[in-house]
Amino acid sequence: MAGRLVRKKGKKAGSAPGTLVYTGNASSQDVSWQLVQYNSNLLQDDTLTDLQQLPSQPVGMVRWLNLCGLAGIAPVEQLGKQFNLHPLVLEDMLNTDHRPKVEAHPDYLFIVFKMLHFHPDNREIRAEQISLILFDNTVISLQERPGNVFEGVLQRLQAGRRLRGFGADYLAYALLDSVVDHYFVLLEQCGDHIEQLENELMTAPSTAVLAKIHHFKREMLMLRKAVWPLRELLSSLLRDEYALIKPETRIFLRDVYDHCVHIIDTMETLRDVLGGLLDLYLTSVSNRTNEVMKVLTMMASIFIPLTFIAGIYGMNFEIMPELSWQYGYALILGLMAAIASGLLWYFRRKGWW
Amino acid sequence: MAGRLVRKKGKKAGSAPGTLVYTGNASSQDVSWQLVQYNSNLLQDDTLTDLQQLPSQPVGMVRWLNLCGLAGIAPVEQLGKQFNLHPLVLEDMLNTDHRPKVEAHPDYLFIVFKMLHFHPDNREIRAEQISLILFDNTVISLQERPGNVFEGVLQRLQAGRRLRGFGADYLAYALLDSVVDHYFVLLEQCGDHIEQLENELMTAPSTAVLAKIHHFKREMLMLRKAVWPLRELLSSLLRDEYALIKPETRIFLRDVYDHCVHIIDTMETLRDVLGGLLDLYLTSVSNRTNEVMKVLTMMASIFIPLTFIAGIYGMNFEIMPELSWQYGYALILGLMAAIASGLLWYFRRKGWW
Amino acid sequence: MAGRLVRKKGKKAGSAPGTLVYTGNASSQDVSWQLVQYNSNLLQDDTLTDLQQLPSQPVGMVRWLNLCGLAGIAPVEQLGKQFNLHPLVLEDMLNTDHRPKVEAHPDYLFIVFKMLHFHPDNREIRAEQISLILFDNTVISLQERPGNVFEGVLQRLQAGRRLRGFGADYLAYALLDSVVDHYFVLLEQCGDHIEQLENELMTAPSTAVLAKIHHFKREMLMLRKAVWPLRELLSSLLRDEYALIKPETRIFLRDVYDHCVHIIDTMETLRDVLGGLLDLYLTSVSNRTNEVMKVLTMMASIFIPLTFIAGIYGMNFEIMPELSWQYGYALILGLMAAIASGLLWYFRRKGWW
Amino acid sequence: MAGRLVRKKGKKAGSAPGTLVYTGNASSQDVSWQLVQYNSNLLQDDTLTDLQQLPSQPVGMVRWLNLCGLAGIAPVEQLGKQFNLHPLVLEDMLNTDHRPKVEAHPDYLFIVFKMLHFHPDNREIRAEQISLILFDNTVISLQERPGNVFEGVLQRLQAGRRLRGFGADYLAYALLDSVVDHYFVLLEQCGDHIEQLENELMTAPSTAVLAKIHHFKREMLMLRKAVWPLRELLSSLLRDEYALIKPETRIFLRDVYDHCVHIIDTMETLRDVLGGLLDLYLTSVSNRTNEVMKVLTMMASIFIPLTFIAGIYGMNFEIMPELSWQYGYALILGLMAAIASGLLWYFRRKGWW
Amino acid sequence: MAGRLVRKKGKKAGSAPGTLVYTGNASSQDVSWQLVQYNSNLLQDDTLTDLQQLPSQPVGMVRWLNLCGLAGIAPVEQLGKQFNLHPLVLEDMLNTDHRPKVEAHPDYLFIVFKMLHFHPDNREIRAEQISLILFDNTVISLQERPGNVFEGVLQRLQAGRRLRGFGADYLAYALLDSVVDHYFVLLEQCGDHIEQLENELMTAPSTAVLAKIHHFKREMLMLRKAVWPLRELLSSLLRDEYALIKPETRIFLRDVYDHCVHIIDTMETLRDVLGGLLDLYLTSVSNRTNEVMKVLTMMASIFIPLTFIAGIYGMNFEIMPELSWQYGYALILGLMAAIASGLLWYFRRKGWW
Repeated sequence: MAGRLVRKKGKKAGSAPGTLVYTGNASSQDVSWQLVQYNSNLLQDDTLTDLQQLPSQPVGMVRWLNLCGLAGIAPVEQLGKQFNLHPLVLEDMLNTDHRPKVEAHPDYLFIVFKMLHFHPDNREIRAEQISLILFDNTVISLQERPGNVFEGVLQRLQAGRRLRGFGADYLAYALLDSVVDHYFVLLEQCGDHIEQLENELMTAPSTAVLAKIHHFKREMLMLRKAVWPLRELLSSLLRDEYALIKPETRIFLRDVYDHCVHIIDTMETLRDVLGGLLDLYLTSVSNRTNEVMKVLTMMASIFIPLTFIAGIYGMNFEIMPELSWQYGYALILGLMAAIASGLLWYFRRKGWW
Repeated sequence: MAGRLVRKKGKKAGSAPGTLVYTGNASSQDVSWQLVQYNSNLLQDDTLTDLQQLPSQPVGMVRWLNLCGLAGIAPVEQLGKQFNLHPLVLEDMLNTDHRPKVEAHPDYLFIVFKMLHFHPDNREIRAEQISLILFDNTVISLQERPGNVFEGVLQRLQAGRRLRGFGADYLAYALLDSVVDHYFVLLEQCGDHIEQLENELMTAPSTAVLAKIHHFKREMLMLRKAVWPLRELLSSLLRDEYALIKPETRIFLRDVYDHCVHIIDTMETLRDVLGGLLDLYLTSVSNRTNEVMKVLTMMASIFIPLTFIAGIYGMNFEIMPELSWQYGYALILGLMAAIASGLLWYFRRKGWW
Repeated sequence: MAGRLVRKKGKKAGSAPGTLVYTGNASSQDVSWQLVQYNSNLLQDDTLTDLQQLPSQPVGMVRWLNLCGLAGIAPVEQLGKQFNLHPLVLEDMLNTDHRPKVEAHPDYLFIVFKMLHFHPDNREIRAEQISLILFDNTVISLQERPGNVFEGVLQRLQAGRRLRGFGADYLAYALLDSVVDHYFVLLEQCGDHIEQLENELMTAPSTAVLAKIHHFKREMLMLRKAVWPLRELLSSLLRDEYALIKPETRIFLRDVYDHCVHIIDTMETLRDVLGGLLDLYLTSVSNRTNEVMKVLTMMASIFIPLTFIAGIYGMNFEIMPELSWQYGYALILGLMAAIASGLLWYFRRKGWW
Repeated sequence: MAGRLVRKKGKKAGSAPGTLVYTGNASSQDVSWQLVQYNSNLLQDDTLTDLQQLPSQPVGMVRWLNLCGLAGIAPVEQLGKQFNLHPLVLEDMLNTDHRPKVEAHPDYLFIVFKMLHFHPDNREIRAEQISLILFDNTVISLQERPGNVFEGVLQRLQAGRRLRGFGADYLAYALLDSVVDHYFVLLEQCGDHIEQLENELMTAPSTAVLAKIHHFKREMLMLRKAVWPLRELLSSLLRDEYALIKPETRIFLRDVYDHCVHIIDTMETLRDVLGGLLDLYLTSVSNRTNEVMKVLTMMASIFIPLTFIAGIYGMNFEIMPELSWQYGYALILGLMAAIASGLLWYFRRKGWW
Repeated sequence: MAGRLVRKKGKKAGSAPGTLVYTGNASSQDVSWQLVQYNSNLLQDDTLTDLQQLPSQPVGMVRWLNLCGLAGIAPVEQLGKQFNLHPLVLEDMLNTDHRPKVEAHPDYLFIVFKMLHFHPDNREIRAEQISLILFDNTVISLQERPGNVFEGVLQRLQAGRRLRGFGADYLAYALLDSVVDHYFVLLEQCGDHIEQLENELMTAPSTAVLAKIHHFKREMLMLRKAVWPLRELLSSLLRDEYALIKPETRIFLRDVYDHCVHIIDTMETLRDVLGGLLDLYLTSVSNRTNEVMKVLTMMASIFIPLTFIAGIYGMNFEIMPELSWQYGYALILGLMAAIASGLLWYFRRKGWW
């Protein structure tokens, strides 16, 4: 869990803006770019190891350049040169703890957001930063870790012609949409775990449940930090009239926006439910302490007076008339039974058992 | 209660936007459409099993096409073709966990919202998704489950001519209004249950009450997720100048909007009351623990010292002068009585009984 | 207290908008209208049993038609016909659980708000709905219950000429102002009760105090539901340029608006104070439990070890050398005194007494 | 503390707007007005007992009319006549529980706000209402209580020429500024008390601390009711283009506004700290209860079993073989020591001591 | 910790606006100004002891005048004369507890904000006030304490030409950026401490943890008071079209703004986590009290009845038949064992051990 609350930024503080420092923790392995070029009729799929191999853009085709597994500064620097990107954009791509945002530059839109993965073994949500650059006919996407998040979109491109009939802005939308769709899956998984927690709490409340509630509250905070800014991002894409986004794509963006708002609603509901579970737990602990106290009080209140009576007749005074009575013992036992019954009746009336 | 926090979306994540996946759980039964056509003088009521049987629209008549019990993709696909609907609209109709919203398309308004049913046996609120499509002279409504939610509106159409004198936009309003009216009934039922809970808590607080408070807090969260977006929806219908909604209908929409805000006020009040009940419960548990402790402390504080004194004179030392005193026993009993009285007086003064 | 959280709406749900259903609980008694007509020089005060007796409006006079004690549909229906009111207005007049609002119609303003009465015997706030209709020269007011809320305004009309020099809009303002003024009285009464509660809590906290805190929190929720919408109403009257309200009246409306905001400030302060009282109560219960525990622990910790020692010398072993020592008894008593003193010193140092 | 939560309004409710009712509690003593007239070169300082003595305004001089200690209606009535003030303004001046506000009238600005005094003996904040009226060249100020709040401003007027070089609007600013500056002093005093409270809570938490926390929370509520509306007031002075306020004064008003926002920040921080203290107190009470319980449990758990063993060998059965063993007594004592050590070790391992 | 909640303002209250009072606590030592002048080709670095030595501005060079360690009024007064600054600006520079803000004056922008230092030994955040004045070609910066906060920026100026190619507005941005970057470092340090706290709480909750949680909540309040106004400041720099800030600098300011929003997100997350820790602590204390109670209750419930039985047969009645039974002792021991087992089984079934 170390370092998850605030992600380390390396030695960045104080360095010049636009200084490229890679803040992820991937090893500097070989990098390969995936180049997909398509129009309604054609789809070419290539792999480049060096961006200088990048062919010139074919007329009337959309180009998608995808990098899975960002490692080190080199590929980003190359990308910056090739596409003439602003130094701050390059810096933000490498700083893997960036807040989701959209930034308009004269020739392109720069979009940063988070892919979230739920790890079922330790029930942790891990964030992966995705950077998108949308040119007129080109989309560049950078993923922080190997493992292609956009597999589904690629398959749809390969499978049917529908997606291929739209422009680069629609491709950017499709990538955003696939990430937001994944949030739903994640929320479902969290929701299932939280319902399970609720059942546990109702049937067998234990300290472990408490730790789990706390854990999920923290995960929800992580989720929140990813989703609220995404909503702003999408709202900005919808509201601000970016020339790169065509009017016919806007209705699709509005759909993702609606989904994002729905995700926020659901997430806030889950947070409320978790808060309620904590209250429930605290109250149930108080309740159980109360139960325990009742048992103790009944046992002690009944037997302590009886023991006192027995103690009296265990005294060794020479003159204790009762001791020589014939039915003394029986009488005292009777008295004890009467006291015990009286107290039991009293506690019963109080509703303690 | 399984799966209620976050509704399952099936295998949707990652699939293409506009892919039709039915996320409800109805079996794919025979579907029949209810077609109502009317003007001030005439009302025709038909049942279609296939949308291809749909007659062409009679001049000057309003057409209402209603489907109760959405099951499977087929009828929605047919609808899409017949009325030339946007693929995203069809997708949203089938995705039964959509956030209430209104969407303007060139020829029609697409409205999604929730009908809420209160099940008195397990005191759960269940949501049913309603989709409305408003054309110039046609209203299409889709309900998730069989059982006609709009029975009342249909009866009013059949009964009097008043409703029939208005256009399709007024019909859409009437449908919305009947759903919002139903929310009031639901709130009344919840309010009754919560007041009953309050009385229980005052007279006989038990663990069951706690579970019920938690339950209603969750139901209120469900309600909230349905009502707040509905308010946005209605506000958008009022504020944005949709050409399909005539000025004379606007005053009626404003009335539903006012009702919706009133529902939100009442709901938030209920939520506050529930929060107060939880505090009250927690405090009353603490109170009872305090009461239990007082009983224990008084019993123990009085009898433990007395038992100690009895214990002293139960010791077997050979030389214990008091034992042979003539009034030794009586003196000790007197001493015990004095101590007990003193402690009782002390506790009384402290206000413990 | 039954039915106060959510007011019943009768059988309204599902019925047509504009359907007149009376949701109050007054019996259908004889209704009489109070007609006041005045200008700077003249004031006529009449009582009508039937609206058809209504004389035509005298030129240059302001007309005020007041109904105390709304009962049944009939008078409202008559009113609707006579003044040509919109069906929704009539419906809202009869629905006595409406949210305060102002509604502009072509010829008149329709204003709904709440008169609040504080019942000192059970310390409950009861709401009474007031409807105002403001025409160019006429004000119509409807009160839910018999007992004239506007007595003060009537007296001022009868007494001096000042109020009579203004138009109908000023009369409407005066009616609103008299209601808002009454809210101050109500807040004062609540404030007094809450301060009294605070004192009780400081000096003699009991379970009854807890119930009272909860009660006042609920009353504040009721108050809140009446006052916040009233602020919106007044703000709308100020902000939206309604032709019926003359510019010179606006400064007076702004004064009521300021008062309303002040009431909200005070109410929210009272709510905060009540929340603080609950915290205080909870903490003081914990405190008292802690005190009780200390008494128990000291008594038990001192006497239980002593009793154990006495128990040892009460054993019947044949060979127990201490028993035959000459000063055995004295030694043991001394040991007991030493132990007791040591424990007392220990608890003293811990600050337990 | 009586009547501090909601200030009494006297018999105002229901009376006509503009009715002059004095709601303060000063006795109707002799009133004297302080008249200060100045320009860059000259300063005249007079005392008037009657406003009719007011000389006509000298050309090019700023006039400041100050009343310390508002008592009764008479002076306000006189003021109203002399300066032709709106009846509502007069009413608001006398109603000493008014919400801070600024009101633009054709010839003048009417400003109401609160001077706050911190009484160190009972640590209470008391509010005094200040009314300002700003004409083109005249400032009228009314203070609720005797004792001149504006002493400092007067001294600066008398001392240097700097303040005298500006107009009446700058004088109004200087008066506002001196009041806001005083808020800082007040916050410092509160802050000191709260830090002291914090130290007390850390070292010696007692019930008195709890009462003090509650007390300061209430005082903060009082402060809040004065400061938030003041911010609105200042923001309105800055934002709305009042002709009476010259552009060069605006930068000074912005400075007071910044101070006011800073005060709000600090106040909200103090409120948060107080809330944190309450949590801390509650938790520390729970902690102490836990400590007390541990002592009790250890004492009881160790000695109760031992006493039981002693009790067994105190039984008087004729046949109890252990009693006649030679080392029976020693064995039993050893067993007891073993049990006690075992339990002590167990509690140690649990970290109870 | 004294005086940290509300910083002292010296004797400022009531004094004239623009009165220079130094509110810091540095001793009035010798002051030296650092003068840096540069363009793309050249960089001159000088130290001035007196501002009158200030050379006239070289054409085409940016001038940066930096004062580390503000002490006393003199240097600020000199600065005011030299650069013709508004008296309020000078006052604000010296008042080291000012709220971060930007203020536009005809010739310059005045910016105040906080540098925050985290002291690892006592884990306190200390604020240092930084004032910036941005002229067309000149930046003046004032630091409250000796020790150059802007070392990094100076080094970058000396090292490369990149920063030197931009104007004075970019220098101001670079200074702001270096401070905001430092906030990230601070948040990382806080985050680490809070995670450590979380681990402590999970493994070994102690009272010290509670004090630390409270401490960090307070530090977060301090942080909050610095960061939220900074966000407003940056937003104002971005939004309001200040002529002194060139369009090409705006994109960099937007980057700092994004960082600032990210810092706020992270800070609020940390606050939420701290709040969660407090809840967790409180619940775990309740839990432990519950555990302690169970031990006590089991020990007492088992041994008190047994001791009572032993007490009965320790009574000295002459006629107690059981005492002379041959197996009386064994039977009683058996009975005791049965009771103990029964109770143990009962507690086991209740899940108490």
